[in-house]
Amino acid sequence: MSRPANRRPENHKISRELLVLTYGALVAQLCKDYEKDEDVNKYLDSMGHNIGIRLVEDFLARSAVKKCQSYSETTEIIAQVAFKMYLGVTPSVTCNSAMGNEFSLILGKNPLADFVEELPAGRSSLCYCSLLCGAIRGALEMIHLAAEVTFIQDTLKGDDVTEIGITFLKKIEDKKHKRNKSNQHPK
Amino acid sequence: MSRPANRRPENHKISRELLVLTYGALVAQLCKDYEKDEDVNKYLDSMGHNIGIRLVEDFLARSAVKKCQSYSETTEIIAQVAFKMYLGVTPSVTCNSAMGNEFSLILGKNPLADFVEELPAGRSSLCYCSLLCGAIRGALEMIHLAAEVTFIQDTLKGDDVTEIGITFLKKIEDKKHKRNKSNQHPK
Repeated sequence: MSRPANRRPENHKISRELLVLTYGALVAQLCKDYEKDEDVNKYLDSMGHNIGIRLVEDFLARSAVKKCQSYSETTEIIAQVAFKMYLGVTPSVTCNSAMGNEFSLILGKNPLADFVEELPAGRSSLCYCSLLCGAIRGALEMIHLAAEVTFIQDTLKGDDVTEIGITFLKKIEDKKHKRNKSNQHPK
Repeated sequence: MSRPANRRPENHKISRELLVLTYGALVAQLCKDYEKDEDVNKYLDSMGHNIGIRLVEDFLARSAVKKCQSYSETTEIIAQVAFKMYLGVTPSVTCNSAMGNEFSLILGKNPLADFVEELPAGRSSLCYCSLLCGAIRGALEMIHLAAEVTFIQDTLKGDDVTEIGITFLKKIEDKKHKRNKSNQHPK
């Protein structure tokens, strides 16, 4: 696993708890600001999108992942490398369509909701971890992959697992995107 | 370093970047919500306090740190164990008073502000990382140590280093605090 030192940013591994509690504070603040759950969800997703756009650069440098050959491979990288790197867990992956463009990331336990036992009162439509969906979408966008990313199941809503659905759409051909050399599907 | 497995929570080490970006989103949201920098600082400090109160339990379990014998030792533990654990850096410590109750944690680079090049426009009084002060104060409170924690220098304000000042006040004798057996100063 030796790689040139300048390929990788410094590796500062930390315990996850400060992230989890800081995220909780962020969600609490948004719940204070927005009355409707849908608005909180949308806002978290949009923040996540901004985060994904910035995080992907760090991810590609740190992981030194090479160009993926299929949606399936891309999804496996998200699960096995990205989730492991930033959340310390590895979701399992299932493919949900014969077309090969719909996948689920399945988590027995949602690390971002570690300290959350239940949704706040009157917040039954809150997608607590919407930021994750936005982050995945934003990161994929930066490597020219358009995707819809949504929560399909959520342990905070009584489901047995947390399931994030990724549906890959057509490729983004926009030339404006800077990163166009690596980690995208072949044309 | 062998300790019974049930003393330690699971050890999920993650890369720091998602925390740093999520924290940035939180600060941005508060800047949107509160016009005055002082109000943002106060709110971040108060959120940090809540986080510190909850994080200390995880910290004591994970670090298995024993009772500290002096303010100096407590400060060293914050710098060498807690900062390392949750932020991936180790600040240097200086003692600032002959009384032995005033200390500084000094960081060449502030990890929470990794992606921040400068304070947002019109936000020159923002203490971007106030949450850290609140978290230290909250965590100390839970081990019966009252302290004032403030930023003395801040690289985001043009200082050469980031310096967090901790002034220990009298001990909290409040019996209501649950954790009264470990990591507090002797009576």
